[in-house]
Amino acid sequence: MSEIREECGVFGIYSDKTGGVAASTYYGLFALQHRGQESCGIVVCDDGVFRSHVDSGIVNDVFTTRVLESLGEGSIAVGHVRYGMAGASGKENNQPMVINHVKGRIAIANNGNLTNYRKLKEELELGGAIFHSVSDCEVISYILTRERLKCGSIEEALNRAMDSLEGAYSLVIMSPTKLLAVRDVNGFKPLCVGKTDDGAFVVASESCALDAVGAHFIRDVEPGEIIVADKSGVRSIRDHCKEKTASPCVFEYIYFARPDSVIDKMSVHAARIQAGRYLAKEHPVDADVVVGVPDSGIDAALGYSYESGITYGLGFIKNKYIGRTFIVPGQSVREDKVRIKLNPVSETVKGKRVVLVDDSIVRGTTSARIVKLLRNAGAKEVHLRITAPPFTHPCYYGTDINSTKDLIACNHTLEEITKILDVDSLGYLSIESVKKIAVPEGGTDMVYCTACFDGEYPTDIPEVAGKHTKYDRKISEGKE
Amino acid sequence: MSEIREECGVFGIYSDKTGGVAASTYYGLFALQHRGQESCGIVVCDDGVFRSHVDSGIVNDVFTTRVLESLGEGSIAVGHVRYGMAGASGKENNQPMVINHVKGRIAIANNGNLTNYRKLKEELELGGAIFHSVSDCEVISYILTRERLKCGSIEEALNRAMDSLEGAYSLVIMSPTKLLAVRDVNGFKPLCVGKTDDGAFVVASESCALDAVGAHFIRDVEPGEIIVADKSGVRSIRDHCKEKTASPCVFEYIYFARPDSVIDKMSVHAARIQAGRYLAKEHPVDADVVVGVPDSGIDAALGYSYESGITYGLGFIKNKYIGRTFIVPGQSVREDKVRIKLNPVSETVKGKRVVLVDDSIVRGTTSARIVKLLRNAGAKEVHLRITAPPFTHPCYYGTDINSTKDLIACNHTLEEITKILDVDSLGYLSIESVKKIAVPEGGTDMVYCTACFDGEYPTDIPEVAGKHTKYDRKISEGKE
Amino acid sequence: MSEIREECGVFGIYSDKTGGVAASTYYGLFALQHRGQESCGIVVCDDGVFRSHVDSGIVNDVFTTRVLESLGEGSIAVGHVRYGMAGASGKENNQPMVINHVKGRIAIANNGNLTNYRKLKEELELGGAIFHSVSDCEVISYILTRERLKCGSIEEALNRAMDSLEGAYSLVIMSPTKLLAVRDVNGFKPLCVGKTDDGAFVVASESCALDAVGAHFIRDVEPGEIIVADKSGVRSIRDHCKEKTASPCVFEYIYFARPDSVIDKMSVHAARIQAGRYLAKEHPVDADVVVGVPDSGIDAALGYSYESGITYGLGFIKNKYIGRTFIVPGQSVREDKVRIKLNPVSETVKGKRVVLVDDSIVRGTTSARIVKLLRNAGAKEVHLRITAPPFTHPCYYGTDINSTKDLIACNHTLEEITKILDVDSLGYLSIESVKKIAVPEGGTDMVYCTACFDGEYPTDIPEVAGKHTKYDRKISEGKE
Amino acid sequence: MSEIREECGVFGIYSDKTGGVAASTYYGLFALQHRGQESCGIVVCDDGVFRSHVDSGIVNDVFTTRVLESLGEGSIAVGHVRYGMAGASGKENNQPMVINHVKGRIAIANNGNLTNYRKLKEELELGGAIFHSVSDCEVISYILTRERLKCGSIEEALNRAMDSLEGAYSLVIMSPTKLLAVRDVNGFKPLCVGKTDDGAFVVASESCALDAVGAHFIRDVEPGEIIVADKSGVRSIRDHCKEKTASPCVFEYIYFARPDSVIDKMSVHAARIQAGRYLAKEHPVDADVVVGVPDSGIDAALGYSYESGITYGLGFIKNKYIGRTFIVPGQSVREDKVRIKLNPVSETVKGKRVVLVDDSIVRGTTSARIVKLLRNAGAKEVHLRITAPPFTHPCYYGTDINSTKDLIACNHTLEEITKILDVDSLGYLSIESVKKIAVPEGGTDMVYCTACFDGEYPTDIPEVAGKHTKYDRKISEGKE
Repeated sequence: MSEIREECGVFGIYSDKTGGVAASTYYGLFALQHRGQESCGIVVCDDGVFRSHVDSGIVNDVFTTRVLESLGEGSIAVGHVRYGMAGASGKENNQPMVINHVKGRIAIANNGNLTNYRKLKEELELGGAIFHSVSDCEVISYILTRERLKCGSIEEALNRAMDSLEGAYSLVIMSPTKLLAVRDVNGFKPLCVGKTDDGAFVVASESCALDAVGAHFIRDVEPGEIIVADKSGVRSIRDHCKEKTASPCVFEYIYFARPDSVIDKMSVHAARIQAGRYLAKEHPVDADVVVGVPDSGIDAALGYSYESGITYGLGFIKNKYIGRTFIVPGQSVREDKVRIKLNPVSETVKGKRVVLVDDSIVRGTTSARIVKLLRNAGAKEVHLRITAPPFTHPCYYGTDINSTKDLIACNHTLEEITKILDVDSLGYLSIESVKKIAVPEGGTDMVYCTACFDGEYPTDIPEVAGKHTKYDRKISEGKE
Repeated sequence: MSEIREECGVFGIYSDKTGGVAASTYYGLFALQHRGQESCGIVVCDDGVFRSHVDSGIVNDVFTTRVLESLGEGSIAVGHVRYGMAGASGKENNQPMVINHVKGRIAIANNGNLTNYRKLKEELELGGAIFHSVSDCEVISYILTRERLKCGSIEEALNRAMDSLEGAYSLVIMSPTKLLAVRDVNGFKPLCVGKTDDGAFVVASESCALDAVGAHFIRDVEPGEIIVADKSGVRSIRDHCKEKTASPCVFEYIYFARPDSVIDKMSVHAARIQAGRYLAKEHPVDADVVVGVPDSGIDAALGYSYESGITYGLGFIKNKYIGRTFIVPGQSVREDKVRIKLNPVSETVKGKRVVLVDDSIVRGTTSARIVKLLRNAGAKEVHLRITAPPFTHPCYYGTDINSTKDLIACNHTLEEITKILDVDSLGYLSIESVKKIAVPEGGTDMVYCTACFDGEYPTDIPEVAGKHTKYDRKISEGKE
Repeated sequence: MSEIREECGVFGIYSDKTGGVAASTYYGLFALQHRGQESCGIVVCDDGVFRSHVDSGIVNDVFTTRVLESLGEGSIAVGHVRYGMAGASGKENNQPMVINHVKGRIAIANNGNLTNYRKLKEELELGGAIFHSVSDCEVISYILTRERLKCGSIEEALNRAMDSLEGAYSLVIMSPTKLLAVRDVNGFKPLCVGKTDDGAFVVASESCALDAVGAHFIRDVEPGEIIVADKSGVRSIRDHCKEKTASPCVFEYIYFARPDSVIDKMSVHAARIQAGRYLAKEHPVDADVVVGVPDSGIDAALGYSYESGITYGLGFIKNKYIGRTFIVPGQSVREDKVRIKLNPVSETVKGKRVVLVDDSIVRGTTSARIVKLLRNAGAKEVHLRITAPPFTHPCYYGTDINSTKDLIACNHTLEEITKILDVDSLGYLSIESVKKIAVPEGGTDMVYCTACFDGEYPTDIPEVAGKHTKYDRKISEGKE
Repeated sequence: MSEIREECGVFGIYSDKTGGVAASTYYGLFALQHRGQESCGIVVCDDGVFRSHVDSGIVNDVFTTRVLESLGEGSIAVGHVRYGMAGASGKENNQPMVINHVKGRIAIANNGNLTNYRKLKEELELGGAIFHSVSDCEVISYILTRERLKCGSIEEALNRAMDSLEGAYSLVIMSPTKLLAVRDVNGFKPLCVGKTDDGAFVVASESCALDAVGAHFIRDVEPGEIIVADKSGVRSIRDHCKEKTASPCVFEYIYFARPDSVIDKMSVHAARIQAGRYLAKEHPVDADVVVGVPDSGIDAALGYSYESGITYGLGFIKNKYIGRTFIVPGQSVREDKVRIKLNPVSETVKGKRVVLVDDSIVRGTTSARIVKLLRNAGAKEVHLRITAPPFTHPCYYGTDINSTKDLIACNHTLEEITKILDVDSLGYLSIESVKKIAVPEGGTDMVYCTACFDGEYPTDIPEVAGKHTKYDRKISEGKE
């Protein structure tokens, strides 16, 4: 139950036939909803005409029958679910963004964060550009347009634009006749492609979205690769592939992605099981039951149980009816939002020595509350095991980690945290192990990014560290 | 993932102090949301003045900050979550129902179904009564009022009314100065009481709602017992206790209730583990992994794993963002609502012999779809185990089982069902075992109602079987 | 721009053919919207099955395409617009009210106020009746049901029920096969019938609603008359006609009704013109222009102009976009809600001696504000003329006049009011004249009720005067 | 009751004190609501921070208490009401538009239509600009930014930008420290300024909005003038004044503006009275009563009555409860939307020879329907008088006149139209007269634009006539 904010999710579909693309995008976004619940949008292209609906809220609320019908039939569509990762929460930042230009209209949706956003933006502004949003999409659109004026196709323009873009981006771009997908050279964010039985080409942040639309997984988009789908088929542009050692975000496996997804040839579920196994090896303990904090701790708890032989138990019931608008009336119960969301199963923990597995500790308050719930339910001992190393560094690639001053691991020793959380023992997964959890059978030539744990950034980072956050983007605009 | 419809849930709180009762009821209803998602309501009593809000939708949507504020402060409150169990879906059936009378206003909320509803209603109508709803609450209110005119208090009236009421009811009733709770003599539906640290008295359908408001569980309301809370304290009226052998509904343990609840001294989670263990004994199989269908099959799958020694695995990811308004656009994908909701974890089942544990098979279509998902994900064998016997008889006590003509077990042999569902083997829990799953340590003098499995009804049933359904109630009114 | 609250409006339609009745009722309610904007409802009967939608808000907001479609086809329908005149504002008071009974379901909608509501209610409660609402409809339903059990048809029951009902009521009642309309023996509230080109029978509070559905006006329902429409045609029951001298409410002509309606053979527009003419005769003044306060003062201002020869001018523009939810942010401008609603046309009044015609003065604050607006716009003199005598007595028949302690005419002399409002002269229409404004050519045997002006009540009134108000109904229930 | 679409309205306020500017803008937009009901928005500047809310719907619906509170306190604000005049109806076209740039954030709102929009847009796009909307505001923002990069202040940039902008624009622009207002050199659209008692500077499309916020009218913004309000006071830049003969739109007086507004020293009400007087002179007739079609025909009907001596009467009641979402269920009544909206007052017209005054005839269907309503209500003769000449040419300055192929006057002779509308006589105001209706006492050096009547465009017009319409803007984007 991490307090780390979810990312974004993208989806795109290209079909030779008209019809069904809005529905498929709707299903795909449902499957990607865990990646962002603040807003969502779908843009459909019907013979060159774009119809779009983008609004605040989750897919289930935003896309009513009437709204879906209003998107009409079409043969290409792109969709997006957003968490207000890198920018203000204003509607103007919602995606997919639709951009008009003499060289053709495009719709664009992104997952990731440019590290040279600020530099590019200033450069563009001094050249006359104006900005409606604080979203990377708008900067990317300008760069893309700048290149498009110099060359003959949107894909060529995108290929040239990649020379200017730094940092993390997994994009889907729709032109009136084409669907494009591209992943940055480091491959920070996942992106994969598939095909439906009807022959439609599909691109999505995670493979679970391919499953949701009945598409067969083909492969991940390679770091640095552009994939183009149009009436002449699907083709790749690999000019930027292998420019660098790929460094996907390891936290996708630990927390962001759905366990039923497979990313860069590695099952997310398997990676979490693996993390649990490593934890059991690194931090063994004599206990009666292993429980996981729903949802992301469940898989790792199973891994811990498999490795240690300690019985796996159902430790908590999570209230699935709590939506984003859940309110907490009454001061005296304010601290109990955790209690409303999670209730321990006494039967499982009463009188037991409990191993509690979770994905992360951020400020520590939620973890402390969960431990207290277990103790109130009768747990005799609580041994907390975390499937990642402590957070100590900011992320510049799109993960909205709280500023370091709020991170408990930046301000306290392991011993202090053990006391603050009132646990009998505390064990974090080591850097060495976390780097191994997502290595598929047969190995990989990728080196997972663990910068938030060790500060080893695989790219240049913005000069003024910490300036590239959501807040800074918001306030930096209002000068004259 | 049963297709059996959820029940209703009730909640009530009585405090000596003013304030916080609406908030507590809101939290309590959240915890009971799984018992009914069609409508919900809260009525607050502030020094004799009733303020009420009842509307269609789930608690999270119906009770906004503004609505909760409009309920104001108060010292007594009752709440209800409803599934359209026994009556039309019209707003007039929403609960709690507020009734005005010269002897005092009451708010009343119910879980259960009277078996003599039709008889009582006709009798009342011939005496001049008019009905706004097709809800048991209105019949009960008339009976209560009839008795109230003959005696000196609401609790005495309720005690007398119980002589007329037959079937299942777990009621909370609020008068301007009192909170009453009552459970029918058979104790079909659960009801329990607790106390907050502040000394407020709380009554709820399930103990998980007590946890949600930080109340300590005291005990179950006894079958036949009336509990009264007012300024002179909490007291019991036991005139109807022990009139009959109690016969609570066993399906509460199998499906309805939350695993973290304790009902009639038995943990629901423990009962499901037990059901899984019995299944493993009755229907063993050589397999590689046991998986449960979320949410209700998870606990029993663990029990099967514990007993059989076969590894427990995470078989499915359930999309938690699908609300009641989820739409399924596009004909070709209509059959895939299951796929949108549930995605198998390939890593867990690929190339494996899988034991699949679920709580029930109703029409069979959902089960068949789930099996197909597993096979597509690579499962080598699928052995389906059901934690209950086959449904073969209607329920007259409030469970909305489809009419027998739709029940697969009424129309097909075990062998046929095995083929229809395309499973390698199929095992139902036996009647003998299901009767034992909810027996707490130290035994019980209750005999769980299993009428839907064996037709052994613990009460008289309506003369014209099948007439007492939702549909019949609706159409029977429109004659002149 | 009276502060007197609007009444209710009723509508009903009976057709031999299926279809279109919901649409017609929707149009009819639109035309009656001025009679109540708090809630509205439509109930459709389709071959004995009732479908209903009743909600808070105006017709345009409550009845969306989807809602209207959900009402389906049918051959009978009734509708209602409500102002929370006599009862709490809770949803349970919304109409039409649907009542189920062994003798048949009915839907009932009312305009008016029973004077013996309290007496009847107590009598019924002591006989076992329970009340969901504080609406007259529910009392009437009980009385109707009581009689229905003793006789053979709904119309006979209604005829008998009229012996018990005292005060004001104009009812439409729908049974599974019939539509009934009835008007109390005094004929306090208007009610008229018409026929569409398709032969459908229509009943409505005002003739403007007949126009709206393309129905031809046939005649007013007589005071004391019951009209029944069913498959054997339309017929009257006149047992209660001529029991008393009819005494319709004169304020319908002055303020409530729409000018394009004709009530009891008298055009509302003509009555207002007449009131203006009488005012000019009773209170002449030397002036340059006559203006009316929109909307109800416009017609009378024309009458004043016709009679006096003083030029009629457009004095104010009324902002038609201000809905019921209009908010007034900012303390300093709180007093200016009038200014937001009404803006004087300087061109018309600048440097002029202005005759200002309005329908009533209640507390005086609104009138004072309007006068100030005129003076700020440059009016040299302002002569206020009111198309009714001063309000001095409560109304027991359904008009929600503020309690007498707020009425400026109960607390101040004419001279004082003239000063408070800062007008150069002030003239009220006399009791003698107001009694004559609605007398049609050819005369009438009715004597208009002017009780709110002179205390001459045409019926018995409740013993404890002032107890029969909305507020009292609300609080009187909560005792035990 | 013209079918000509309304325009847009703008509002701005600059205060030295913090607080109240959002509330004032809200009131101002209320008063301007008649100029656009599709969407509205307010942007508040609080010490450099912009807070904005822009949404579809009318002011009363969009700005709830909660929304207004969310805009917070501030000292500058701009607002806009929009009709989808020149562009798609997408949300991205809503105004005020907020634009971020290194030289400072601005909010911009416009009323009018650039005639060189297409040319400017293409030029900008070839320079790398991208467009989110099809709104003039975005083109203007780019031009403004281009100039801002070359000079030292926003007002200087605006002054330079005016050299590039052609056609109609009345703009309000907010920077973090300034409020700017500008009117194009022709002064096509109205714009005026005022001052509140508190010393705040206010700018609005019409003076009625100044009245609504309690501001005193100071004067109209001159054609070509820029007015700047900041902490050093209010000042003018007049470099573009008197460049051309001003040519304000005469249809503002005939239809768009509110009668209580004064534009370019002429009362709108007086102009309409004048139009009625001219009509009476040009097209006299022997009749019994003059009635106007609400709302815009009322004033002119009075003028006709004043001049001719024929009695003025209240001819129609307009249903004020019909909102934008009004639906027309049922095919057979589809033609009756006019009947739902307007009901004739029989009393006024029955047996009479009626002069009917309206502002325009567009396709003729609405006019024909109104005439039929009058005849059904008993009018003996109907003489239609129109307060403008026939529409025969497209407008390039922002008025959304239907394409000429739908205009009845482009396809039929006066005689034919008289027959089609079934009137006894028909008279349009002459071009000569319409040019005189808005000349204030003391004369004017302006020559009102009457291009839609006579094709005399006061500016260059787009080369490909008819290409500059809403529809064309929409479809022209989708090429690659």
